Amino acid sequence: MKKIALIGSTGSIGVNTLKVIETHAEKFRVVSLAAGNNVELLLEQARRFRPAVVCIRDREKAVILKSKLAGTRTRVVWGDEGLMEASTHPQADMTVFSVVGAQGLRPLVAAIKARKTICFANKEPFVIAGELIKRLAKEYGVRILPIDSEHSAVFQCLDGKKTSEIRRIILTSSGGPFRTLKMKALEKVTVAAALNHPRWKMGKKITIDSATLMNKGLEVIEAANLFGVPVEKIKVLIHPEAIIHSLVEFIDGSHLAQLAITDMRIPIQYAIGYPERLDSNGLPRLELSRIRQFHFEEPDTAKFPCLELGYEAKRTGGTMPAVLNAANEMAVGSFLEGKISFVDIPLRIEKVMKKHRAVKKPALGDILEADRWAREVF
Amino acid sequence: MKKIALIGSTGSIGVNTLKVIETHAEKFRVVSLAAGNNVELLLEQARRFRPAVVCIRDREKAVILKSKLAGTRTRVVWGDEGLMEASTHPQADMTVFSVVGAQGLRPLVAAIKARKTICFANKEPFVIAGELIKRLAKEYGVRILPIDSEHSAVFQCLDGKKTSEIRRIILTSSGGPFRTLKMKALEKVTVAAALNHPRWKMGKKITIDSATLMNKGLEVIEAANLFGVPVEKIKVLIHPEAIIHSLVEFIDGSHLAQLAITDMRIPIQYAIGYPERLDSNGLPRLELSRIRQFHFEEPDTAKFPCLELGYEAKRTGGTMPAVLNAANEMAVGSFLEGKISFVDIPLRIEKVMKKHRAVKKPALGDILEADRWAREVF
Repeated sequence: MKKIALIGSTGSIGVNTLKVIETHAEKFRVVSLAAGNNVELLLEQARRFRPAVVCIRDREKAVILKSKLAGTRTRVVWGDEGLMEASTHPQADMTVFSVVGAQGLRPLVAAIKARKTICFANKEPFVIAGELIKRLAKEYGVRILPIDSEHSAVFQCLDGKKTSEIRRIILTSSGGPFRTLKMKALEKVTVAAALNHPRWKMGKKITIDSATLMNKGLEVIEAANLFGVPVEKIKVLIHPEAIIHSLVEFIDGSHLAQLAITDMRIPIQYAIGYPERLDSNGLPRLELSRIRQFHFEEPDTAKFPCLELGYEAKRTGGTMPAVLNAANEMAVGSFLEGKISFVDIPLRIEKVMKKHRAVKKPALGDILEADRWAREVF
Repeated sequence: MKKIALIGSTGSIGVNTLKVIETHAEKFRVVSLAAGNNVELLLEQARRFRPAVVCIRDREKAVILKSKLAGTRTRVVWGDEGLMEASTHPQADMTVFSVVGAQGLRPLVAAIKARKTICFANKEPFVIAGELIKRLAKEYGVRILPIDSEHSAVFQCLDGKKTSEIRRIILTSSGGPFRTLKMKALEKVTVAAALNHPRWKMGKKITIDSATLMNKGLEVIEAANLFGVPVEKIKVLIHPEAIIHSLVEFIDGSHLAQLAITDMRIPIQYAIGYPERLDSNGLPRLELSRIRQFHFEEPDTAKFPCLELGYEAKRTGGTMPAVLNAANEMAVGSFLEGKISFVDIPLRIEKVMKKHRAVKKPALGDILEADRWAREVF
């Protein structure tokens, strides 16, 4: 029985993680749940899974939760301190991070130091502080398992293989909702259109990142950090059907690929069940003869400059990925609020990056300072 | 330095095996070579690789070889006895079988008993006596590595995984040269058309087997034997581009696939180099964005009944796969000689199978007797 702390339980990945846990109730137990704002759903989850601790961001919401959960075994905590407590709960074997953005970094570091196995869908910490996290994980003997479908795919292809035998990691991308749009039309893209992803139902931030291809830019950095390969060995391939979730090319010319239907429960279950593969039970089966065709093409970096910004940030290294990430969070926020246009997103990020003088081999403090600086300058 | 006995050195797989060995001259040394008829090529190979032993089928050709190789370190042997000697050469660490048909069975068994690592492209022994070979290999602690691109793909996807986590093995097939032909047109197929395979340059026997889909029928049996899964868990998928060489579906819904260009040197090198992956050096790279599309469809079993005959033979079990294989060798021979038509091939095989009363749990003698019987009855 694995005991799980789930940080970000009311988002898309959090909800799917709880579905997987319910399907395999004999394998998993929830010991803590943490959410941002959605107090109603968190309450419902607390009643169903009866964790030892629930955490919510605001004090006022914590008060509501407390009154509703009075008389149950569940204790209510809140804020940054509460989040730390939920992430490092002494009963937990494993902490699952499915929050959005750089905010996940501090609790992630705390969970590693508390020697919890880490499953993460929260890619930003691995973008801004990936090398530091890897070093810490090694020091504390902690296993790190990706939930992101692309990194889960790479992880599955590499399982048991030597890093020295990797020639390239090929991350696939559906190309997002604007793959076939002309440059001119991109300028008029609305928030609603950008939020309408063709393959995956996800949160707003990651859906916009998928439309700009910044999501892939961040994943390139994440993959380089996570798998310990130079960024030049990471390639992006557009595959609109989104069935091949990524590939690894080995030095002998063989490629291994992981394929599955586009349902996040598959990589979530792989991560939390690792090293055991559990039955997918009721999930639909992948039948290639029904899909009939796969398409592949190179990404259009002129139309989607965010991808190249990702490579550039990693080549510069140090605190630059943190600046890229923070500027992107700001730009996506501004776009969602209608303050800037879709094509402004990469321009605004690039402007911030050009102003930044990267700190080499940064400590956690340098990274957080670069993050703060970029948001201020934006 | 691995020392290699190469049985079937002048065929397509044999020649490619020697190319791989030459490319990685620091890793491999040839200690014996065996061929059927091509005395000129065998002589050339003997001069280049300077093995301890060469074997040729006929005594007369052995006499020619002997005179040509007089004064060299290479000893010439011939016939069945010579083949045994070449397959079990005391210096060899590994024996590579790339002969055609059931004739490879006896030397294969001898090589296992001599505790040689086995690499095999010669599928018939694994079709007719797969369970027996697996049992022997276990008894003698011998590793068996497939060279066939499909089985190499499955082997690579399964490497280190548990058999209990396999849901299905999906063998891909290019569909052969007659995939898009109408039923009526199949009746008029010529030998020349059948020998013109769209993706692979191979020997005559296997090229005809690819056109009838019997090759896939035999591979289904081979995969069931080799990977220890029931035949119902093995599926065939038509994929005309022949880049995905096969897939494994796991119980969690994930599929792993191996992809590569259609060049036999890749699976040959994987097998003889195992567990190390060696550099592909000058081989062309696979670029999916240049291939642009993959297609998938179900096999048409009405048009190609040989595939279903493969499943049927394995379901019946015992000596039936040996009968299927022998009848197929006879039928292909008759077709190549112009004695029967293309659509007669499955009909003639089925007729022989219907007459056979399968022996359950056969010993080697029962299998060889069934093979002999089927050729006589044909």
